[in-house]
Amino acid sequence: MNGTQQDGSPPTAVVGMVGAGQLARMTQQAAIALGIELRVLSKDRDSPAVDAGARHVAGDPCDMKSLLRLAEGCDVVTFDHEGVPPALISRLAAAGHQVRPSPAAQLLAQDKGEARRLLSRSGFPVPPFIEVAQGDVEAVRSFAAAHGWPLVLKAPTGGYDGRGVEVITSAEQLASSPLAAASTRWLIEEKVDIRQELAVLIARRPAGWWQAYPVVETVQRDGICHELQMPGVIPAALAVEAVSLAASIADGIDATGILAVELFVTGDGGLVVNELAARPHNSGHATIEATVTSQFENHLRAVLDWPLGDTSLLAPAVVTVNLLGPVGGVDLARGLPAALEDPSIHVHLYRKAHRAGRKLGHVTALAETVGEAQAKARRAAACLVAP
Amino acid sequence: MNGTQQDGSPPTAVVGMVGAGQLARMTQQAAIALGIELRVLSKDRDSPAVDAGARHVAGDPCDMKSLLRLAEGCDVVTFDHEGVPPALISRLAAAGHQVRPSPAAQLLAQDKGEARRLLSRSGFPVPPFIEVAQGDVEAVRSFAAAHGWPLVLKAPTGGYDGRGVEVITSAEQLASSPLAAASTRWLIEEKVDIRQELAVLIARRPAGWWQAYPVVETVQRDGICHELQMPGVIPAALAVEAVSLAASIADGIDATGILAVELFVTGDGGLVVNELAARPHNSGHATIEATVTSQFENHLRAVLDWPLGDTSLLAPAVVTVNLLGPVGGVDLARGLPAALEDPSIHVHLYRKAHRAGRKLGHVTALAETVGEAQAKARRAAACLVAP
Repeated sequence: MNGTQQDGSPPTAVVGMVGAGQLARMTQQAAIALGIELRVLSKDRDSPAVDAGARHVAGDPCDMKSLLRLAEGCDVVTFDHEGVPPALISRLAAAGHQVRPSPAAQLLAQDKGEARRLLSRSGFPVPPFIEVAQGDVEAVRSFAAAHGWPLVLKAPTGGYDGRGVEVITSAEQLASSPLAAASTRWLIEEKVDIRQELAVLIARRPAGWWQAYPVVETVQRDGICHELQMPGVIPAALAVEAVSLAASIADGIDATGILAVELFVTGDGGLVVNELAARPHNSGHATIEATVTSQFENHLRAVLDWPLGDTSLLAPAVVTVNLLGPVGGVDLARGLPAALEDPSIHVHLYRKAHRAGRKLGHVTALAETVGEAQAKARRAAACLVAP
Repeated sequence: MNGTQQDGSPPTAVVGMVGAGQLARMTQQAAIALGIELRVLSKDRDSPAVDAGARHVAGDPCDMKSLLRLAEGCDVVTFDHEGVPPALISRLAAAGHQVRPSPAAQLLAQDKGEARRLLSRSGFPVPPFIEVAQGDVEAVRSFAAAHGWPLVLKAPTGGYDGRGVEVITSAEQLASSPLAAASTRWLIEEKVDIRQELAVLIARRPAGWWQAYPVVETVQRDGICHELQMPGVIPAALAVEAVSLAASIADGIDATGILAVELFVTGDGGLVVNELAARPHNSGHATIEATVTSQFENHLRAVLDWPLGDTSLLAPAVVTVNLLGPVGGVDLARGLPAALEDPSIHVHLYRKAHRAGRKLGHVTALAETVGEAQAKARRAAACLVAP
């Protein structure tokens, strides 16, 4: 009988991933098909990836011994978040473990100041910026004299989902900002006139071979990515420019695995680079159903230096809506059958405990038109997280 | 950070599955997306489904206590094989547990004689047959007088992958057949002039709502399904007839979940029913990538009485090649990167130990034409299991 064999075969590869969140969860789904064993490092085994069957390695992502324990027996170590100090990643590599992406590539995804400096030096379009020590209000004031208020204050490291970013309208506001008080360095940028937000995902192998996913347009709400459209509704020439820019950055920083490049389309129709993420990315969840090979499978294939899969789109229009925890709690199980009443909807739940604004899952709809995909995805999302 | 939350949310549902083979493994992949906890009952935890993260319930699928232990706390109990005695399934249902499909539907998938009698009585096309007690060569001889040699001998229960089926050319061969000696009942059938073999998968909810998958054409080699094509290359009218036949059987036996109906196209272009399977089926693996909703997700949705997902095809031609263990062993890990050199190929490995002829995985290719899909899938399969 199919179900009673009592013997297994060794995995095709063993991949260690630091972090056990939803990105590791969806990576585990891809690992199953390819016969890969995925081991995830996190403090708690009660996590989205371990729930999905990834092997749990208990430990602190910021502790060298934990990282070494994860790396032991793995063909390669990779990451589902940017929380590991680059010095530790370098020590892991120095100890003879294969670490992908490289510590240098990760530093750029971790430190917005580093990324801004490198990209600017290399001729990539970034907003005008300065990085100053905490409290140097004078430097900010003279930057404002040249670029005008409001400015954007960013914590160079550790921000996500809108945290670590604040619009500053005056020197007085800066002086009283909790974010400014909490950041030992201030990254100050001109406030970009944002017409659209885009993301380009590049899957890249160690030797440099890469594949780009179709450009995604993201809709943020309170700094949190709320809805995504693939392909983004932009002129073809701008899509080419966005992909070229992202791929050139991937080459320049020698990225391995998925590199996500977030871009702003400015008021004059140009592009500036916002942020980098050197891992599978929230903007690429639609690739599970909407492209031949998902970003999660391609991340695994890339860090293992296996041939990359096709990133072509399978439908004219695809919309993903993130399921953000509503204020006052949610019961996803209750809303799920109603969400599935549309037979074409794809639901992904992460098994994370509810918190207001937290990403608990996402839904994806493929359709002939953007409007149709949007209507389907929004309806399903409303069934699941309606307050 | 994405990866460090230390708290989970309850599953949207808990499904118990008897069996932990590759069908349960692929069901687990579908369960992850929907936030379902899948628990699998098998003797050994070293199994394809537990490897993929399904919760292991240790026990014997033929032991009532084990079945009750599986059912405890599950919303529904279902199956990845036909090895559970119907009487135990009935007792499980009588104990108040939700069991889907029903014991009656499962009996028909388990017992070929039962299925033949019921389908024949209900007017469905089946090959001429008799069922006789072991050793009743005289009855077989007179059946042969009416229908001619050769005949097909089947063990009414327990056969799969070509086991339990033997072509019998004479009464003498019957008398010396090990299969005949091993079967307490003999199911004897006229040898059908098989032009093509088809399979139709129906996903069906308890109230009767159903969705059919596109008709699959299967190519057997030594009784083992070797290659599958979706949709099968058959006249449109025959496809309609095949789907109608399968759906009518599903209704007639009140199937829940996936019902697979295997059909022969006979020399005169008609259809006869071969076998039934009341579970996700080997003929539907292509649905993972090639239809909007996979058979595994729809099996879960159906047994939970949730709305069914769309079963439409996403490509003009799809070919799946099963990876059968070659004589002399195999190293799937070694061949995997070469198989992935075609960026459009989808590889599924089950982590089962090698045995000659055993299904160790499958590859699926979507393409514009059957020829193209076939060439791609065969090439990838050859990379993985070339002797």
